[in-house]
Amino acid sequence: MSDEKNGLVNRLKSIEGHVRGIQRMVDEDAYCVDILRQTLAIRRALEKFDSLVLERHLHHCVTTAIRSDAEEERSRAINEILEIFAASRD
Amino acid sequence: MSDEKNGLVNRLKSIEGHVRGIQRMVDEDAYCVDILRQTLAIRRALEKFDSLVLERHLHHCVTTAIRSDAEEERSRAINEILEIFAASRD
Amino acid sequence: MSDEKNGLVNRLKSIEGHVRGIQRMVDEDAYCVDILRQTLAIRRALEKFDSLVLERHLHHCVTTAIRSDAEEERSRAINEILEIFAASRD
Amino acid sequence: MSDEKNGLVNRLKSIEGHVRGIQRMVDEDAYCVDILRQTLAIRRALEKFDSLVLERHLHHCVTTAIRSDAEEERSRAINEILEIFAASRD
Repeated sequence: MSDEKNGLVNRLKSIEGHVRGIQRMVDEDAYCVDILRQTLAIRRALEKFDSLVLERHLHHCVTTAIRSDAEEERSRAINEILEIFAASRD
Repeated sequence: MSDEKNGLVNRLKSIEGHVRGIQRMVDEDAYCVDILRQTLAIRRALEKFDSLVLERHLHHCVTTAIRSDAEEERSRAINEILEIFAASRD
Repeated sequence: MSDEKNGLVNRLKSIEGHVRGIQRMVDEDAYCVDILRQTLAIRRALEKFDSLVLERHLHHCVTTAIRSDAEEERSRAINEILEIFAASRD
Repeated sequence: MSDEKNGLVNRLKSIEGHVRGIQRMVDEDAYCVDILRQTLAIRRALEKFDSLVLERHLHHCVTTAIRSDAEEERSRAINEILEIFAASRD
C-alpha cells in the first residue's frame, strides 16, 4: 500500500513540475500551440492518476461497501461512482 | 425493468431522430456552427443514456459480481468499470 | 463541395444505423458493458464528423470572416470557435 | 499584454498549489472520491487556462496567418486549430 501511495505522490510531483514548466513557457512567450500541447499532456497525466485512484477505490472501499449488509452503504458507493463518471465527461 | 428498458429505447429513438435532423441541416447547407451545436446536443443525450445504463449495471451485474465468492468475477466487474471510465475520457 | 456534403451525410446515416443497432441491443437485454462500448463508438464517429465540419468551417466561413475588414465579423468568427472549443470539453 | 501574461502565470501558480494540496491528501489517506473531486477541479482550471491561451492565439497568430497572402501560413494555422480540437476531445 505504501508503494502504491508513493507511486501516486510521485505522479503528482511530476505533474507539479510540468505545470511549472508551462509557467516558464508563458513567461518566455512560447508559441501558444506548444503551450496547449503541454497542458494536454498534463491532462493525460491527471487521467492516468485518476484511473489508479479509482482502481484502488473499487478494490477497497467499493468492494467493502457492496459486500456490506447496509443498503445505504451500497447505494452511497454506487452513487459516488455515477457522480465521478458524470463529472469526468463534463 | 420493462419501464426502464422502454425509457432507454425511447432515448435512443430521440437521438436517432436528432441525427436525421442533422442530415437535413447538412443537406440544406446550414451554418457549420449550428450543425456543431446540434451534434453537441446529441453527445449530451448519449452521455445521459450512458449514465442510466451504467447505473443499472452497477445496481445489478456489478453488485452481484462483487458479492459473489468468485474472485475472478469480482476482478472482471472492476476491470470493466475501469475500462469504461478510461474510454469515456479518451 | 457536393462530394464533401455526401460524405458528411453518409457518416450521419452510418451513425443513425448504429443508434438503431443499440436499440436492438437494449431490447434483447444485451450486456450493459457491450452497450456502453457501442455508444462510445458512436461518440467517436460524431467526433470525426465534427472535425470534418470544423475543417470546412475554418477553410470557408472563418477564413472569409477574418480576411474581411469588418471588425465585428472577425470577432464573431473567433468567439464562435471559442464557444465550440469550450462546449466540446464540457 | 503583460497583464494577460501575469493572469496566465497566476492561474498556473494556483493550479500548482492545487496539485500540491492533492499530494497532501494522498499522503494523509484522504477518501478516494474526495481526491477525484480535486483532480476534476484541476482539470476545469486547466480548461479555463486553455481557453484563454486559445483566445489569445486566435486574436493574434491565427488572425495574422489567415490575413497573410502565404497559402501555407493559412493552412498551417487552420491545421493547428484542428489538431488542438481533436486532441482536446480525446
